[in-house]
Amino acid sequence: MEIYPVIMAGGSGTRFWPASRYNLPKQFLDIIGSKTMIEQTVERVSPVCREENVIIVGNEAHHVLLKKISEKTGCVILEEPFGRNTAPCIGLAAVYLRKKGVVYEPMAVLPADHFITDEKRFRNILSIGGGLARKGSIVTIGIVPTRPETGYGYLLKGAVKDTMEGIEIYKIERFAEKPDKEDALRYVKSGDYFWNSGMFIFTPETILKEIQLHLPGVHEGLLEIEKCLGEKNERDVLRSAYQKFPSVSIDYGVMEKTDRPMIALPVDFGWSDVGSWESLYGLRKKELDGNKNLIHGKGILFDTGSCFVFNQAEQMVVGVGLEDLVIVNTDDAILVADMKKSQDIKKIIEEMEKRGLNSIL
Amino acid sequence: MEIYPVIMAGGSGTRFWPASRYNLPKQFLDIIGSKTMIEQTVERVSPVCREENVIIVGNEAHHVLLKKISEKTGCVILEEPFGRNTAPCIGLAAVYLRKKGVVYEPMAVLPADHFITDEKRFRNILSIGGGLARKGSIVTIGIVPTRPETGYGYLLKGAVKDTMEGIEIYKIERFAEKPDKEDALRYVKSGDYFWNSGMFIFTPETILKEIQLHLPGVHEGLLEIEKCLGEKNERDVLRSAYQKFPSVSIDYGVMEKTDRPMIALPVDFGWSDVGSWESLYGLRKKELDGNKNLIHGKGILFDTGSCFVFNQAEQMVVGVGLEDLVIVNTDDAILVADMKKSQDIKKIIEEMEKRGLNSIL
Repeated sequence: MEIYPVIMAGGSGTRFWPASRYNLPKQFLDIIGSKTMIEQTVERVSPVCREENVIIVGNEAHHVLLKKISEKTGCVILEEPFGRNTAPCIGLAAVYLRKKGVVYEPMAVLPADHFITDEKRFRNILSIGGGLARKGSIVTIGIVPTRPETGYGYLLKGAVKDTMEGIEIYKIERFAEKPDKEDALRYVKSGDYFWNSGMFIFTPETILKEIQLHLPGVHEGLLEIEKCLGEKNERDVLRSAYQKFPSVSIDYGVMEKTDRPMIALPVDFGWSDVGSWESLYGLRKKELDGNKNLIHGKGILFDTGSCFVFNQAEQMVVGVGLEDLVIVNTDDAILVADMKKSQDIKKIIEEMEKRGLNSIL
Repeated sequence: MEIYPVIMAGGSGTRFWPASRYNLPKQFLDIIGSKTMIEQTVERVSPVCREENVIIVGNEAHHVLLKKISEKTGCVILEEPFGRNTAPCIGLAAVYLRKKGVVYEPMAVLPADHFITDEKRFRNILSIGGGLARKGSIVTIGIVPTRPETGYGYLLKGAVKDTMEGIEIYKIERFAEKPDKEDALRYVKSGDYFWNSGMFIFTPETILKEIQLHLPGVHEGLLEIEKCLGEKNERDVLRSAYQKFPSVSIDYGVMEKTDRPMIALPVDFGWSDVGSWESLYGLRKKELDGNKNLIHGKGILFDTGSCFVFNQAEQMVVGVGLEDLVIVNTDDAILVADMKKSQDIKKIIEEMEKRGLNSIL
């Protein structure tokens, strides 16, 4: 069995502003470790597949950055003319694979900006999931929730279908969208739910059939794209197809509607979607000093605890008497924020956009 | 009566780091208003004297900065080869004036880094003090204390000697050095003390006689300097004299020892020595926004209160969810500090010096 990882790298997150920008989303940053998150995602799967099997789907606005990563990693790059959420992105990878003759082999759809601690276990899950996907199932990687997170979707699990290599395989009863606080608490307390990690495994055959069934318009566009992949008019056809695509997630467009056997592989391999400065600080806890401070780049802290300095510029950052702050320094903007409010940065960005500060966004 | 203001501008304070540096002390900064504190001091006295009467005594390490100020203001600049505290500084100005023929006219010694709200009242005090000084008194400007400050010296007042233009004139019983917290509380509670503002009025005749009496070594050096002021060897003689001078304040070297009539003019004209970021923030309260924030330079604050952003560089400073912080941005260093701890910056500088960070100090 060969696995075809599809790394979704088209996101335009702003939650790591000012380190991330509209033109430089977090997947292109080395915020966790010495390589970009895309490269880390590639390295995570590389022991179970050949590099040329790895497809990175990005946004053509990031062409230069994507090209650099392709040169470094040897992966295939597919560029979307604009982001249309995950369904068109996954469909594009599926038709690319089918045109290459990969139809009944599993593709593993992986967001480019996740962090995983136990990579061995993760690859083990990919192999098990790949085997199930070849039989026509849609496999979702479910994460055992550790807190009532309202930022993730949830999976309601059904009966245990099987046990493989010590891992229970569940039927999925329902995809639940991001809940409010109350529902999230209930979900976690019940023990009946997993977090939807956004990682899926299925074959091109399976997912294209499902897209045809539930998103026929998208399917039609994908067929047009498939015809001209590798041809001179590829870019034009992509652009005109994408212009017609709705912006729709695979969860909403397919997963919530399909009758196909859906399976969850529940895991706990130290997963995070690295959604804020606070969560990044939490993930890098091994690097904390005796006062729980983390300094990335040039910085000195006095009489300070639980602070995260992320300094990309040349200035020295000096903190005195601080607690629970994140300080981010870049060439054109400096953020000083209450660590707990680092989730609000999205709103802050919107506000700055309104005030015409686009040059630093 | 002509008044000869002597502005002492040789200090090397570090309390406004990183805006101030060893080579750029606060008196050369426009931290309060649009001009440097030296220029503001000159403007404060200019309605009561001609510009060429104003003497600025600085450190030759700041030659370029001093020259610029001299060109802008038309004041005389005297450069000390190194700082030896206030007694040699005042002595130098006194022999300069005597050589110019000013012997029995009052010189008003004024630190270059003070902030005064009621400038009219201040000038009124200078005139009254000047009159008293011409009769041979040493006049000290005493400030009615508003808190038990341990960073200032105090004056113990004696009997009321006179009342002029509604201002009581006190005999000074004693100069008290910077007290500990307990003594400071006692001083303020008693109502018997003023703050010693470090502003004095006397004639060159008076102060040189006192220096001769109590600091004969300094007096000897001053005589040598007097001889060669304006001559080719001025700089060499200054250097060799200053090398022999002890580092001694006029308070300790003369004021605490003299038998001459000493007088305090007690005032309350909104005075501050602008000793820390916190006190600067307090002085600029008219500029506060509705959340008690003060932004100097480029900055935006969200969900933030009682913060002071002092931004000298081009980056945008963005604060989120902050309280009681001072954020100072310069081309090579950024300070983020608890406002209440901004007094500790001196210690922080010493610590950074130990760590070999001199390039940013």
